[in-house]
Amino acid sequence: MRYLKCLLPVFISIFWQPIFGQAFDEDVEIEYIKSIYENILVQSSSYDWLHYLCKNAGGRLGGSPEYAAAVAYTSHMLDTIGADSVWTQPVEVDYWRRGNVEKAKIINSKHLGTVELSVVALGFSPGTDPLGITAQIVEVKNFEELEALGEENVKGKIVFFNRPMEVTRLNTFHAYGAGVNQRTAGPRNASKLGAIGAIVRSMTVKYDNVPHSGATSFKDEKPIPAVAIGLKDADLLSKIIKKEPKTRVNIQLGCLHMGKRTSHTVIAEIKGTEKPGEIILVGGHLDSWDIGEGAHDDGAGVVQSMEVLHLFKRMGIRPKHTLRCVLFANEENGMFGAIEYARLAKANGEKHIAAIESDAGGHTPVGFRMDAENSIAKSSFAKVQQWRSIFSTLGVWDIQPGGSAADISRLKDQGTVLFGYRPDSQRYFDFHHSRNDIFENVHKRELLLGSGAMCALVYLIDKYGIK
Amino acid sequence: MRYLKCLLPVFISIFWQPIFGQAFDEDVEIEYIKSIYENILVQSSSYDWLHYLCKNAGGRLGGSPEYAAAVAYTSHMLDTIGADSVWTQPVEVDYWRRGNVEKAKIINSKHLGTVELSVVALGFSPGTDPLGITAQIVEVKNFEELEALGEENVKGKIVFFNRPMEVTRLNTFHAYGAGVNQRTAGPRNASKLGAIGAIVRSMTVKYDNVPHSGATSFKDEKPIPAVAIGLKDADLLSKIIKKEPKTRVNIQLGCLHMGKRTSHTVIAEIKGTEKPGEIILVGGHLDSWDIGEGAHDDGAGVVQSMEVLHLFKRMGIRPKHTLRCVLFANEENGMFGAIEYARLAKANGEKHIAAIESDAGGHTPVGFRMDAENSIAKSSFAKVQQWRSIFSTLGVWDIQPGGSAADISRLKDQGTVLFGYRPDSQRYFDFHHSRNDIFENVHKRELLLGSGAMCALVYLIDKYGIK
Repeated sequence: MRYLKCLLPVFISIFWQPIFGQAFDEDVEIEYIKSIYENILVQSSSYDWLHYLCKNAGGRLGGSPEYAAAVAYTSHMLDTIGADSVWTQPVEVDYWRRGNVEKAKIINSKHLGTVELSVVALGFSPGTDPLGITAQIVEVKNFEELEALGEENVKGKIVFFNRPMEVTRLNTFHAYGAGVNQRTAGPRNASKLGAIGAIVRSMTVKYDNVPHSGATSFKDEKPIPAVAIGLKDADLLSKIIKKEPKTRVNIQLGCLHMGKRTSHTVIAEIKGTEKPGEIILVGGHLDSWDIGEGAHDDGAGVVQSMEVLHLFKRMGIRPKHTLRCVLFANEENGMFGAIEYARLAKANGEKHIAAIESDAGGHTPVGFRMDAENSIAKSSFAKVQQWRSIFSTLGVWDIQPGGSAADISRLKDQGTVLFGYRPDSQRYFDFHHSRNDIFENVHKRELLLGSGAMCALVYLIDKYGIK
Repeated sequence: MRYLKCLLPVFISIFWQPIFGQAFDEDVEIEYIKSIYENILVQSSSYDWLHYLCKNAGGRLGGSPEYAAAVAYTSHMLDTIGADSVWTQPVEVDYWRRGNVEKAKIINSKHLGTVELSVVALGFSPGTDPLGITAQIVEVKNFEELEALGEENVKGKIVFFNRPMEVTRLNTFHAYGAGVNQRTAGPRNASKLGAIGAIVRSMTVKYDNVPHSGATSFKDEKPIPAVAIGLKDADLLSKIIKKEPKTRVNIQLGCLHMGKRTSHTVIAEIKGTEKPGEIILVGGHLDSWDIGEGAHDDGAGVVQSMEVLHLFKRMGIRPKHTLRCVLFANEENGMFGAIEYARLAKANGEKHIAAIESDAGGHTPVGFRMDAENSIAKSSFAKVQQWRSIFSTLGVWDIQPGGSAADISRLKDQGTVLFGYRPDSQRYFDFHHSRNDIFENVHKRELLLGSGAMCALVYLIDKYGIK
């Protein structure tokens, strides 16, 4: 007994680490992760990658030639940085093209005559014939108002959804979440009541006249021409309607649903040294809206994810688990890349222990959201809490349960612990889905610090596990 | 005894609040402070004030006519919003003018010929005669290298201080703090060894060619012409010197120390209802560098401070303590406004219980720094900790002891609890003291959220005290 007591500490010191995971020294990890940040801030190529992606591929909807150029470039760069393997995963996507004509105008206002409006077609809007559609416009703030109007007041008209995003929400993503259904479902609900077109107030909290696109979904309803309108023109249109309730608007759109095309999700990985069968995924979506350059949405997430692999290679960190970078196809217009990726992961018996997605812009990092609904995720969240003060040191203070990100969410039922990377939200919807989502609006340091936060999380999960 | 026991809870409930301050209900306060934020996000005029200040007064060094215009405008606006009283406090400042000529060039490089350099004069640099100064240039990274060169290698030459700001520091203010002495003291130390001019690598972590000004101080040394140079030109100059060690540079400056002028600190207050003799100060500095528009530095702090008073008026909050907004004169070129303000506060027996300064730009708020060195300040810091979760709800997560801000620091020996408001630091030194510090680089929501954080702190201090 005495003998045993004496040896117990020895046993513990020998077996503790292998049994319970590597011993955790917070100060040591803070210093190491700071060296990761320093490496990124000095050596990262990701800002240059983003420049190329924005300026040479540009706006890149799934199925487009621009998207194919983005696949070629990112695959090549992932190969260049020394990933163990790089491949692409084909997926059928709905290819929708904007076309050259995209106009709307108020017809013969008594006070202002003809007024051109700043609009962009919504994704999956049908086009019009060359003369466009012309009809009286009827304004609503929400679906209850639309229902109250009923078919008799909507049929043959153009419905104008004019509910502003709530500027009073501190986190603009919350404002977006609360308001975006007027874009995604507004035109469908208008069509259901016989409307022949829809105009939607743009989803932005910046007061300017730049229209913001995005997908709309008609499901089983008849597709009708649908556009987003800049905020200043939305307010002007609303004022004119109040004075002249019979105001008519003409909309001309050259957009076209092109049918199915093959796009590719880009995948690269560094094989794990100890648990090659367990995958830690980092990713974003490679497609973007065609107006603008898809810089924040989601070029930032793409190059931040690529940077994670590059950092591990540059610093010579051999991950224990397989580290995989996934650049999903077709997030904006159907999610088919994510759906196919998850399907194949399941079919091939792949085990993703954790997935981290960056799809909230390239601004200064503030935290992560964790999908922590089931019991595995809850225990993972508790584990991440132990790293809280490490992240605080890095300014990454806001780690909370609830939500993650769209593409990786498809892995949820495979037991993957899901993380959505979260940067500061204040500027994101200034650019989102608009012609202003360009490289020049991404700040280099902010972008790199986001990679830093993602690298830190991947490094900790790889070293200490996540369950 | 029984009687007493029975009455004890009654006594406590009656006297607890007056003795120990108002009862604190966190949820109630979170809701109320959210209503403050909502009011600001919808109703604030401060972004328009900043526009006027930047576009109509513009860059405004102490003593300049532009500064006088800023005094007139802000005084008028503070009066308009209904402050109980508005006044100005005269102060003698050193008036330095940049003049029209501001040039530097490399003379007859073998490889490149004459090369114009992107420079701006440092504040308090003397001018040159029309032909300028021309001398061989000698590069150093720090004062140790300068000392090692000694008078024999420095005399009659132009010293080029080329130490970069450390991009690896996550908080750019720390990088600035660690590097700025080459601007403030470099030219003086060069002069001490007989140099006839100085060129200083600009204090910025953004890699472009925009020079950043700022004050330099010669103390008892002979003033010599001193300029800041853009980073690209600094690197070019350094490369040329390595190839051609006898490289000569010409500097022409039209700047002039104009002597003493009277400037004014602008003060406005709302009298306290219960403790009018106890002042809570909010402020920033009204002067700015003359290049650019002083938008982030410190137009943002100016209008955020004005907004605190306006918010209290708009929401009909009558503060218990006197709430004073102070827009300090001459922070950039001597601190004379802050020194005079503190001198008069002491002379007049004014009691400032707390002071909150915004002088770190108009970006997304992250926290406050508290000067918590003495025992009073330590207990105040403990008090503020009780509000931590309120602030976290608002995204204001980083409340720490250590430092505050320059102007209010002069009140430290009067027992005032000092707070420096802190926004995100990543972009600040892209603009600081340069021609890029313009209105267009301030983001409306980020600016307003800063006012929100300051209002929240003032509201809590006013309601619950700070000691």
